[in-house]
Amino acid sequence: MLAFELLHTEGDARRGRLALRHGTVDTPQFMPVGTYGSVKGVLPSALQAMGAQIILGNTFHLWLRPGLDVLRGFGGLHAFERWPAPILTDSGGFQVWSLGEMRKISEEGVRFASPVNGDRLLLTPEVSMQIQTVLDADIVMQFDECTPYETAGRITTEDEARTSMELSLRWAARCRAEFERLDNPNALFGIVQGGMFEALREASVARLVEMDLPGYAIGGVSVGEPKEAMRRIVAHTPRRLPADKPRYLMGVGTPEDLVDGVAHGVDLFDCVMPTRNARNGHLFTRFGDLRLRNARHKDDARPIDETCRCHACAGGFSRAYLHHLDRCGEMLGPMLASLHNLHFYLQLMREMREAIEQQRFAGWRGRFEADRMRGV
Amino acid sequence: MLAFELLHTEGDARRGRLALRHGTVDTPQFMPVGTYGSVKGVLPSALQAMGAQIILGNTFHLWLRPGLDVLRGFGGLHAFERWPAPILTDSGGFQVWSLGEMRKISEEGVRFASPVNGDRLLLTPEVSMQIQTVLDADIVMQFDECTPYETAGRITTEDEARTSMELSLRWAARCRAEFERLDNPNALFGIVQGGMFEALREASVARLVEMDLPGYAIGGVSVGEPKEAMRRIVAHTPRRLPADKPRYLMGVGTPEDLVDGVAHGVDLFDCVMPTRNARNGHLFTRFGDLRLRNARHKDDARPIDETCRCHACAGGFSRAYLHHLDRCGEMLGPMLASLHNLHFYLQLMREMREAIEQQRFAGWRGRFEADRMRGV
Repeated sequence: MLAFELLHTEGDARRGRLALRHGTVDTPQFMPVGTYGSVKGVLPSALQAMGAQIILGNTFHLWLRPGLDVLRGFGGLHAFERWPAPILTDSGGFQVWSLGEMRKISEEGVRFASPVNGDRLLLTPEVSMQIQTVLDADIVMQFDECTPYETAGRITTEDEARTSMELSLRWAARCRAEFERLDNPNALFGIVQGGMFEALREASVARLVEMDLPGYAIGGVSVGEPKEAMRRIVAHTPRRLPADKPRYLMGVGTPEDLVDGVAHGVDLFDCVMPTRNARNGHLFTRFGDLRLRNARHKDDARPIDETCRCHACAGGFSRAYLHHLDRCGEMLGPMLASLHNLHFYLQLMREMREAIEQQRFAGWRGRFEADRMRGV
Repeated sequence: MLAFELLHTEGDARRGRLALRHGTVDTPQFMPVGTYGSVKGVLPSALQAMGAQIILGNTFHLWLRPGLDVLRGFGGLHAFERWPAPILTDSGGFQVWSLGEMRKISEEGVRFASPVNGDRLLLTPEVSMQIQTVLDADIVMQFDECTPYETAGRITTEDEARTSMELSLRWAARCRAEFERLDNPNALFGIVQGGMFEALREASVARLVEMDLPGYAIGGVSVGEPKEAMRRIVAHTPRRLPADKPRYLMGVGTPEDLVDGVAHGVDLFDCVMPTRNARNGHLFTRFGDLRLRNARHKDDARPIDETCRCHACAGGFSRAYLHHLDRCGEMLGPMLASLHNLHFYLQLMREMREAIEQQRFAGWRGRFEADRMRGV
């Protein structure tokens, strides 16, 4: 089901290898997001060419469309979306939480109206496990309540965060029971909650570790909190998780966030940022970010980053051309920008893995952060 | 500048080879349309992988965006859009004609307001040659007036079509003079007009042939006329053009239209249909057309066409998956559909070239038309 090997460490940073049913994942690793069974604007063959080893699918979205009957007919998500390597699926918890006023949370689960057709639906820990079993994801996430940072402008109190965290723990136990009942051959990860409160995070870690799950995620970050609050939790929680199990920081983040996460012992990341920002003309580079819509790129014949080997940069597509495609609403613009941004994220992870292997991660980080400030 | 070699003929059908400044084009050939310097949703590398030899760019659109200053800085369209092989550019005539009430045609040229920023612009035969010279297209089209089939529901009369055709002839002469003055090293094609009137088409051919241009196009078809009217002109005009020069049927058409054009001696085609229809879930196959949005594809695990070797079909992407992507508005849907449709068009041309080489085009055509009726 899952084997995790820790190959090198440097401080809290870890270089490992994760064996899953559909293949091997070198960690630290970034997982491109394929919400509806497609990483937006990128062919699976292009993802493989740039070295992606694992992608994410969204349980909530795939449950609604195409639905379980279709996915069951394909024997799961891999065959449906033509992705032969590992897949992680989230639990649907974050998405139902994002529905805001349209959902109602109880001990049993979450009731909501389908945003697709208005159907009344109930998502529970058991249903989430059933869906993810049909999807046949290599890594299955427990159904949790993602504790918000604030609600209607009011910051979540410690009591509220505790109540929410404890609900997630009870749901974790129900997920494990259902996962076992279903004879799911993959790996179930628990999710640490507890909001921005270290004591709650520690309690959540302790209770999840007792469950002896094959991996753990840090949830409830990147939910609107100030950057320093997120950094505080990332500095606190990962190293309190068992060293011999993979750690996944959910929904994070910027390139700097990834580097900070790795420095604190995180092994897996996912984020829509590389693809979403690409579609908005926001490109990541080694020397800082580049806003394609800025008129100064209008006649700039240079590639996005001369040192980059992605299809867009190595193919010689210029900033002027990408600026033009964006301005004209041409689909090729987001396609090339997504190839670039995802390549940048995956290359960043490759560099961090190498640096940790060679015990030079701290020095690498200093240069990386200085380069990023240089300006592109 | 241009050399055209006729390798085989079968009846009126021709198998030839066109040598242009940026490469060789096997005819009959289909040219994917890259209006704004991008074939919508398809990487240049993917176009090359599927065997595209020449693509089209739109003078009118590229003049407005990115504009001549930018294109001049790149030394033309090839470097800007990273397409190393031949390019044909239209003259802008069809696009200004399409502006309808927003433009005013005179002997001098066409005055109109830019749909991008409202600027008052004047497009003349000379300006069209100047723009296409900056673009450095391998094949430059004369600036013409595309005679409409009908205007506000009233069918164009023979007198109106003659007046329009004669204007296009005078513009052809001005184009040639300007093209020579500019020392353009590429090839200028004339455009036969004359509406749906054979006598006018013959007069247009006679006058253009006197100009001894390196190639000729049949314009003013696929402009809203009934299919039988188009077929009548396609049966009439191509074989009246010089046998030793390439013939280009503009803006045509369906797979059956292409086969009919080849049968009547056409060498080059362009059409937005493969890419535009792809974006609307309309797929072309050997066994007829397939509408992806039809609910019957919801759980169909078959590829679009099991005999097709495009990236989508050979890659095992199912009808169910493509149906799902279309339903969810995922960009990968039009990307895969465009790869399929363009591959189908290019493969169709390859098959016709082979059939003519082997003197079995007539038999091939019978089987092709029967297969297309079979249903997919």
